[in-house]
Amino acid sequence: MLMTSLLTKKKLGQELTREEICFFVKGAADGTIPDYQLTAMLMAIRLNGMTARETVDLTLAMRDSGDIADLSAIPGIKVDKHSTGGVGDTVTLVAAPMVAACGVPVAKMSGRGLGHTGGTLDKLESIPGMSISLTEDAFIRQVKETGLAVIGQTGSLAPADKTLYALRDVTSTVDSLPLIVSSILSKKLASGSDGIVLDVKTGSGAIMHTVEDSIELARTMVEIGTMAGKKFAAIVTDMGQPLGTHVGNALEVKDAIDVLSGRTGGDLKEISLIIGALMLKLGGKAGSMEEGRAMLEKTIENGTALEKLRLMIAAQGGDPRVCDDVTLLPRPAVIRQAVCGRAGWVSAMNTEALGEAGRAMGAGRLELTDVIDPAVGFVLHPRIGDRVEEDTPLCTLYAKNEADADRAEEAVRAAITFSDEPCGRMPLYYAIITENGMIRPE
Amino acid sequence: MLMTSLLTKKKLGQELTREEICFFVKGAADGTIPDYQLTAMLMAIRLNGMTARETVDLTLAMRDSGDIADLSAIPGIKVDKHSTGGVGDTVTLVAAPMVAACGVPVAKMSGRGLGHTGGTLDKLESIPGMSISLTEDAFIRQVKETGLAVIGQTGSLAPADKTLYALRDVTSTVDSLPLIVSSILSKKLASGSDGIVLDVKTGSGAIMHTVEDSIELARTMVEIGTMAGKKFAAIVTDMGQPLGTHVGNALEVKDAIDVLSGRTGGDLKEISLIIGALMLKLGGKAGSMEEGRAMLEKTIENGTALEKLRLMIAAQGGDPRVCDDVTLLPRPAVIRQAVCGRAGWVSAMNTEALGEAGRAMGAGRLELTDVIDPAVGFVLHPRIGDRVEEDTPLCTLYAKNEADADRAEEAVRAAITFSDEPCGRMPLYYAIITENGMIRPE
Repeated sequence: MLMTSLLTKKKLGQELTREEICFFVKGAADGTIPDYQLTAMLMAIRLNGMTARETVDLTLAMRDSGDIADLSAIPGIKVDKHSTGGVGDTVTLVAAPMVAACGVPVAKMSGRGLGHTGGTLDKLESIPGMSISLTEDAFIRQVKETGLAVIGQTGSLAPADKTLYALRDVTSTVDSLPLIVSSILSKKLASGSDGIVLDVKTGSGAIMHTVEDSIELARTMVEIGTMAGKKFAAIVTDMGQPLGTHVGNALEVKDAIDVLSGRTGGDLKEISLIIGALMLKLGGKAGSMEEGRAMLEKTIENGTALEKLRLMIAAQGGDPRVCDDVTLLPRPAVIRQAVCGRAGWVSAMNTEALGEAGRAMGAGRLELTDVIDPAVGFVLHPRIGDRVEEDTPLCTLYAKNEADADRAEEAVRAAITFSDEPCGRMPLYYAIITENGMIRPE
Repeated sequence: MLMTSLLTKKKLGQELTREEICFFVKGAADGTIPDYQLTAMLMAIRLNGMTARETVDLTLAMRDSGDIADLSAIPGIKVDKHSTGGVGDTVTLVAAPMVAACGVPVAKMSGRGLGHTGGTLDKLESIPGMSISLTEDAFIRQVKETGLAVIGQTGSLAPADKTLYALRDVTSTVDSLPLIVSSILSKKLASGSDGIVLDVKTGSGAIMHTVEDSIELARTMVEIGTMAGKKFAAIVTDMGQPLGTHVGNALEVKDAIDVLSGRTGGDLKEISLIIGALMLKLGGKAGSMEEGRAMLEKTIENGTALEKLRLMIAAQGGDPRVCDDVTLLPRPAVIRQAVCGRAGWVSAMNTEALGEAGRAMGAGRLELTDVIDPAVGFVLHPRIGDRVEEDTPLCTLYAKNEADADRAEEAVRAAITFSDEPCGRMPLYYAIITENGMIRPE
């Protein structure tokens, strides 16, 4: 088989066969196809697209390019969730313990933060003593015993994606539906769970910039994932403001514990209840979203959700006392508050700039080798649509030093738009997509 | 400037600025842009195209990526011709001496054959003693003294094209109008002549497969070349059969000498008269095609064309006596004739297969490092439309040995289609394109 023949077909808008797609993916994984041919193919796919059949074959070939986790030793339907990357998005740490407390095992492999978006592994590592590196055996044992584990990747999952993603990043071919779908799904399919709920972010700073494109991506992933033989559901949520009020690693763990303790509500809790309900549906525990939501709320009320988080932290070497005393989480040298400084309504936020502000404080990294400061970040008090006065708190800054706090305050202030007119709140979500169709909020 | 931004623009179908195109071409020439980004751009250009303005800028940037020959020391309007690559296409060796004999200086840098098509340099080197490597000074001196020189490239012309052409070849991006145009024109513009006649071949085995696409390519090149400040004209000719009857290096020199001596006519002579007339028009010596043709025919009758060739061969160290005695050209061990073996009409030829048959005998090369045998090849006697009998000569084979001759005879026979019904002759050409418009034969 010749790579030039594959390039000719895709250039002419023709469909590649399964064998041709396997040849391409194998060559990407083992380096037998040179990068300059891979990138020409990526651009041809970006411009001429792929059929659903090609996208399934691409996804499966990428899944099969490396190790596939075998979770069959864990009884029951294992569920997982995946976000395309948000700011203040701590849903995993809220939903996973709730779902596990309902009896659906959650065996989750998570990622690190990159750029302006956070990553669950970095958040977990802010808990003193916590390890996210488990062998596959230890991972399976923990899920069997406690019903919950969140760790870093075991083995080499979808190495073809590693090669292709790095090349997409430098050739402006990230924004291709079949390439996004195969990249996300190949890793999720290889990580072994039976049901996966996808949280597709929309807006500037998200993988897709319009609601329509994001819904299209979510629908395609549910369709392709289902064709690949797993249970899939998706929700499209907004990047118009950070999901939770806390941005930063230890701060987001605190945010999750606050929700699981029943101390706070808000959008983080609401989205976690929806995603959790979808996970319970995929896991066969809830017949409807309403039933799932009621089950999850109960786990907060009766403390079983927080107990699941406590068990997981202990099992992974962390200090479970953080669940009862969040001041045991790392705290920085400087903690101070800033006020809005003007009266009006909060009309817009630049979420990407807010994520960047956290990153600049040391909460995130630009290169995977950068070292994170778990203690830093900020809590953003108002939400879009809120009425504020001059002395209403804008944010609480958690910084290494006063200079960092000054810069962060300025960046946060620049990212918030105030209006003299009242303005509406953001919708909680734009669409929920399951195998059976789409639900849009009223 | 970031290559990823350029890729984003071209991916979205936007126009690149001159500065962006210069950045891309400079990066291709000096290696500062990695191949994997260059090929993504080549595919984006192949699929989203380029405007005329972008194509001009690309052509000029590629011209400026290396040396530019300065022929200003030669008085008069210097003319050149270029073929996109044919079989039995010896037009340069016929037209250039005729045009020079009319007083228009021909300062031509030629190429080598590759694959199934021949190259003028290889043909010239079959003349005993002939050198095609001259310094730029010697080249200019020879044109000033004799009016004619045909040599290999001096200096490094359009090195960006060398990089991009090699990458196009392995990424299925050869068939892009702006990439073809810029590749051909950048080298011709850098080689210093004032007027250039392009011979664009059409058909299977040619750069463009349909007459319409070939006319479009010819029109675009004349348009872009004119915008680049030189005089351009083009003719679209057919690859439906070899242009001359002789295929092979010494054989094609003989074919040219036969025409210049007035001994033979046929399509090679006819096309050379048209291309020569266009060169005389660009050179300001002829007001019309008819006038040009009459001037050229006179140079055959009075022997001045052959005298020009004789002078050029002598100036470049070759044996000028070949012009009077073609048996002084290299001759192989085996020369034998094959007959048609059936009666009928010649209805079609596979020109690419005929070129390949010559190459397999040793007349051409697949890799630039292959060594050519100047003596081998074949003369193909009938033309499409000819009536033949069983004992009509089909071809005369010039081979290293009997086994080669056997194989070549079989390949030639397989490349010729006979019909029981009379069939028409091929048109001599499909279109002549000048700055002022297009002429199509009646």
